[in-house]
Amino acid sequence: MGHLLDDTIAAIRPADADAMVEAGRRQARLTKPAGSLGALEEVSIRLCGLLDRCPAPVPGRAAVAVFAGDHGVHAQGVTPWPQEVTGQMMANFVAGGAAVNAFARQTGATVVVIDVGVAGPAPDGVLHRKVRAGTRDLSVEPALTRAEVVAALEVGISVARELVEEGHDILLTGDMGIANTTASAALVCTFTGAAADTATGRGTGVDDDTLARKTEVVRAALTLHAAEAGDPVGALAAFGGLEHAALAGFVLGAAAARVPVILDGVIAGAAALVAQALAPDAVAACFAGHRSTEPGHHLALERLGLRPLVELELRLGEGTGAVLALPLVQSAARALAEMATFDGAGVSEDKR
Amino acid sequence: MGHLLDDTIAAIRPADADAMVEAGRRQARLTKPAGSLGALEEVSIRLCGLLDRCPAPVPGRAAVAVFAGDHGVHAQGVTPWPQEVTGQMMANFVAGGAAVNAFARQTGATVVVIDVGVAGPAPDGVLHRKVRAGTRDLSVEPALTRAEVVAALEVGISVARELVEEGHDILLTGDMGIANTTASAALVCTFTGAAADTATGRGTGVDDDTLARKTEVVRAALTLHAAEAGDPVGALAAFGGLEHAALAGFVLGAAAARVPVILDGVIAGAAALVAQALAPDAVAACFAGHRSTEPGHHLALERLGLRPLVELELRLGEGTGAVLALPLVQSAARALAEMATFDGAGVSEDKR
Repeated sequence: MGHLLDDTIAAIRPADADAMVEAGRRQARLTKPAGSLGALEEVSIRLCGLLDRCPAPVPGRAAVAVFAGDHGVHAQGVTPWPQEVTGQMMANFVAGGAAVNAFARQTGATVVVIDVGVAGPAPDGVLHRKVRAGTRDLSVEPALTRAEVVAALEVGISVARELVEEGHDILLTGDMGIANTTASAALVCTFTGAAADTATGRGTGVDDDTLARKTEVVRAALTLHAAEAGDPVGALAAFGGLEHAALAGFVLGAAAARVPVILDGVIAGAAALVAQALAPDAVAACFAGHRSTEPGHHLALERLGLRPLVELELRLGEGTGAVLALPLVQSAARALAEMATFDGAGVSEDKR
Repeated sequence: MGHLLDDTIAAIRPADADAMVEAGRRQARLTKPAGSLGALEEVSIRLCGLLDRCPAPVPGRAAVAVFAGDHGVHAQGVTPWPQEVTGQMMANFVAGGAAVNAFARQTGATVVVIDVGVAGPAPDGVLHRKVRAGTRDLSVEPALTRAEVVAALEVGISVARELVEEGHDILLTGDMGIANTTASAALVCTFTGAAADTATGRGTGVDDDTLARKTEVVRAALTLHAAEAGDPVGALAAFGGLEHAALAGFVLGAAAARVPVILDGVIAGAAALVAQALAPDAVAACFAGHRSTEPGHHLALERLGLRPLVELELRLGEGTGAVLALPLVQSAARALAEMATFDGAGVSEDKR
């Protein structure tokens, strides 16, 4: 593996237990019934564990990194969308016309687009970090070499580092890559042990015939490559994609820097499984932005042990679900940091 | 009924069907797979119907109105919290120390606190619109007279009008009132036909004995008053509370002004059932901010036909669930208003 990857993995530590205990105690003193902020209380406690401080500062400068790559398996007809759409949508992101841009304007997040492996040329305005022009077809050969996987992981680590150096204190995952739910399904099967037909879904909304073809492609690829959960770099080499590898690196980079990272959908979920296999404590930095309709996403979140914040049947990708969850994470942090305590506000407690 | 109430009800019209059809067509042209924004697409379409425009402008100036009142049924031991907490929490809202304040700072909403019926004196900094000092005990007599109900409904209408006149273009419901989930349960039963034990919940988190007592209070009150869904003012007179009546008026006021109103939890849900009974088209203005753990809230949302945006097991009230949903509603509107179309962005469509 590369030095950057090794060093990053070595820097990842577990959440700080003392800060989390203190955060739990603080939650109990705030002017509200115990537990009444539901899942947001856990978010605030996990943030304290990651940031080693109670209360944790409220993250204020968010960046969503949209990693784009193409997939050789597109040739197998796993999606009705032409491959050119990956590049066209990158241009749309740069121009500010996509859903992730609209949501980012609402929530104050910066959108950064990275070409980690688009088949064609990438538009101006993106970060040019292309490892190769799309993956090989996972249904006939390994999608990537191990060296390519490490290079893409290190792209993700570098982007996370750069965004943190620029002052961003919360990172969000985004992705673009026509056919990338096929690679996601294969990765989810590898790391959760699920069968192909349990983890493969309709992606952006494919019809029954395409779903059947896609599921068979995933099933056959699992047999062909016999990738193992204990060899995450090998699994990425088998299935790709370049954006999955970069996202896994992005999660590792965030975890090493002790910066929270909000995961988007199934692409990020699959990538986070890779990150978890490389460094189990990386999950301490992860917050599940949403749960999509993709069945593999549900399986991934279960394996990661993360509860999604938004469940609105989104299936778009791009980072949309992560950006929608940003104000929820910030609000959770604010409650812990800013609310008055019963003593401080002169509010009586319940009589139990 | 009062003139203001009559005039407000008379002004409420259904959503504009043409604008909604146009919004549906526009959604299909945006650069994303059809339907991929899930429940947010419906939010954007309903906003267009309410605002009679496609795309609807993105709501930018939000106000959460926290209506506070006390409940005579507190004497029956339906909650472990002392009644003084209602007034103490009003002071906490004014000082900015409550959860709703923290969330409002995150999302840019203004918090307005209204005394519509607190038992004791209200702190400085609130709107003084007290109709009476708490309701009567619904377990022994009607909580309010019909005249008091109309007065409280008109407080809510007036507050909605004033906030809209000040330039707010989206309103959010908030509430404070120790014991108010008891009145909520009775109202939900009246308007949905549910049994007391189905609609009565733990509120802020009462123990088994208190839940049993509370459920019995609701069951006996339903028999005592025999309120009917066809007489919503009578139902409010039977059970209260003053904040429920004000919130029902607030929803009516928003609907009459064609301003969207995000509902918080079970208190708002019960109040919205009253508004629906008074003016069925008022629901066109309503967006369900969240679904709480309170079983009556689930029933109310079903009857209203609204899908909650946030489901994080909150059970705090104050408007917290509505404020958390605000960026989701705004993001839904932004997607429709700001996203590029396939033609405009030069993005290829799928080949189906």
